Amino acid sequence: MQANSEDSGSRRGDSRPIGVFDSGIGGLTVVAALRSVLPNESIYYLGDTARVPYGGKSPSTVQRYSREIASLLLDGDAKTIIVACNTASALALPVLTAELPVTVTGVIKPGAEAAATATRNNHIGVIGTRATIKSGAYERAIHELNPQARVTARACPLLVPLIEEGWLQSDVTDKVLMQYLGPLLEAGIDTLVLGCTHYPLLRPAIHRLLGDGVTLVDSAENCAIAVRELLVREDLNASSGRTGHLQVALTDPPDAFLDVAHEALRLDIGEIELRSVSPAAAAA
Amino acid sequence: MQANSEDSGSRRGDSRPIGVFDSGIGGLTVVAALRSVLPNESIYYLGDTARVPYGGKSPSTVQRYSREIASLLLDGDAKTIIVACNTASALALPVLTAELPVTVTGVIKPGAEAAATATRNNHIGVIGTRATIKSGAYERAIHELNPQARVTARACPLLVPLIEEGWLQSDVTDKVLMQYLGPLLEAGIDTLVLGCTHYPLLRPAIHRLLGDGVTLVDSAENCAIAVRELLVREDLNASSGRTGHLQVALTDPPDAFLDVAHEALRLDIGEIELRSVSPAAAAA
Repeated sequence: MQANSEDSGSRRGDSRPIGVFDSGIGGLTVVAALRSVLPNESIYYLGDTARVPYGGKSPSTVQRYSREIASLLLDGDAKTIIVACNTASALALPVLTAELPVTVTGVIKPGAEAAATATRNNHIGVIGTRATIKSGAYERAIHELNPQARVTARACPLLVPLIEEGWLQSDVTDKVLMQYLGPLLEAGIDTLVLGCTHYPLLRPAIHRLLGDGVTLVDSAENCAIAVRELLVREDLNASSGRTGHLQVALTDPPDAFLDVAHEALRLDIGEIELRSVSPAAAAA
Repeated sequence: MQANSEDSGSRRGDSRPIGVFDSGIGGLTVVAALRSVLPNESIYYLGDTARVPYGGKSPSTVQRYSREIASLLLDGDAKTIIVACNTASALALPVLTAELPVTVTGVIKPGAEAAATATRNNHIGVIGTRATIKSGAYERAIHELNPQARVTARACPLLVPLIEEGWLQSDVTDKVLMQYLGPLLEAGIDTLVLGCTHYPLLRPAIHRLLGDGVTLVDSAENCAIAVRELLVREDLNASSGRTGHLQVALTDPPDAFLDVAHEALRLDIGEIELRSVSPAAAAA
């Protein structure tokens, strides 16, 4: 059994934060789950708001952006990295895992595990950005756990803009949701993966429209539990008496959506740091 | 009077294209107007699809991106540059004008001129992205032409995603439009500036909802006319017998929206070139 350095009152994981990144600030839904599951851990969050959204961009561009943002987290001495963005998890997790000196956790696998556990009729729906759905990453992750499961996936590119506009309870949002979700409901899903870190903010509206017959799954809580296990396994968890803090950095000054996220998630965000990516020189 | 080199059959403006840029491919609405007004001119169009949209980003980031994209157009020997993006026109035109060795034309002033000419009751509505509206650029441009004009402006961040989803004729789009435009109509505007290069694709829906009492103005045609005058003034226009061609380059591979734009605009786009911005190294 591993020596427990907690006896000495401090651990080597104490001084290093968990690094979390997202294309924007939707990943704060994952931070909220981490704060609740791992209150002793400090978190360094980086949102690439200068280039948000990733969801409509190509795999090579999403990989390049993810590498850049992950290297900023490593500069901040991150002891592990969480890709709190479904698009980046779907498209960049293998390259990050291969290249980075710390363990990298995405949100696809935890979401797939939660869905495979929740479904009773073996028919799972998945919604996400165009890039996430096109990647087929959820289908693959679900089929690895349960080769018999049927997966019906649908890209919902209007949901992020609706959420960022703050229209969480609105006729228009209900109409858009029904246009996207109606076919999934008719196909007979009993479980729906909210495959984008913004979507938990629409959970009340989606639940109202789909009813109790469909279990809604998001990756945030499962991802936080996976990270708790990982830190113990790597002997990188912080001391239990410690109070973790949250540092948020963005690549572009925050806009109104930060208020929406702040209010809905009740996170104590504090002062926002501004980081820069992509120097001004352009390469042909 | 200036010597007319057209007599010799070719002019110094023949070999150099008009450079046009946009955050994405919405600026192709301006290209369509240029093709119609200036059929002899070649056009080099650059869409920054790797970082689209600009409309929610900060002035400093939009200025940096605009500089980078403009320098790619200059590498392509552009004889003049058109900023076919309302957000970049609103936020970056002064820095580009100050720094670049060629004349730079934005879309705000031509749109403001068209609106100031069209209004009968002196009350003009303006719709655009968050960044364009927040900049107040249209108000300033309209008030320079007509200090007495009343301007009512409204940010409409959902319209671009709706257009990119291809929902040009849809209940949802009508509902969103009425939520945005209803207050402008009640306020009594008789002219509406479509202050984003995507919006002309919604012109039929907007006209249907607002009726004949409101004149719709977009910058594209006025911008093309301004550029025609500019090229003659700078003796950079192409020979009248010449057939111009269109070269389109993007910073990220095109997605489905290109089909929407292609179909709606009937532009012969040909093969798309891929250009790269922002080298992989990240600066802290």
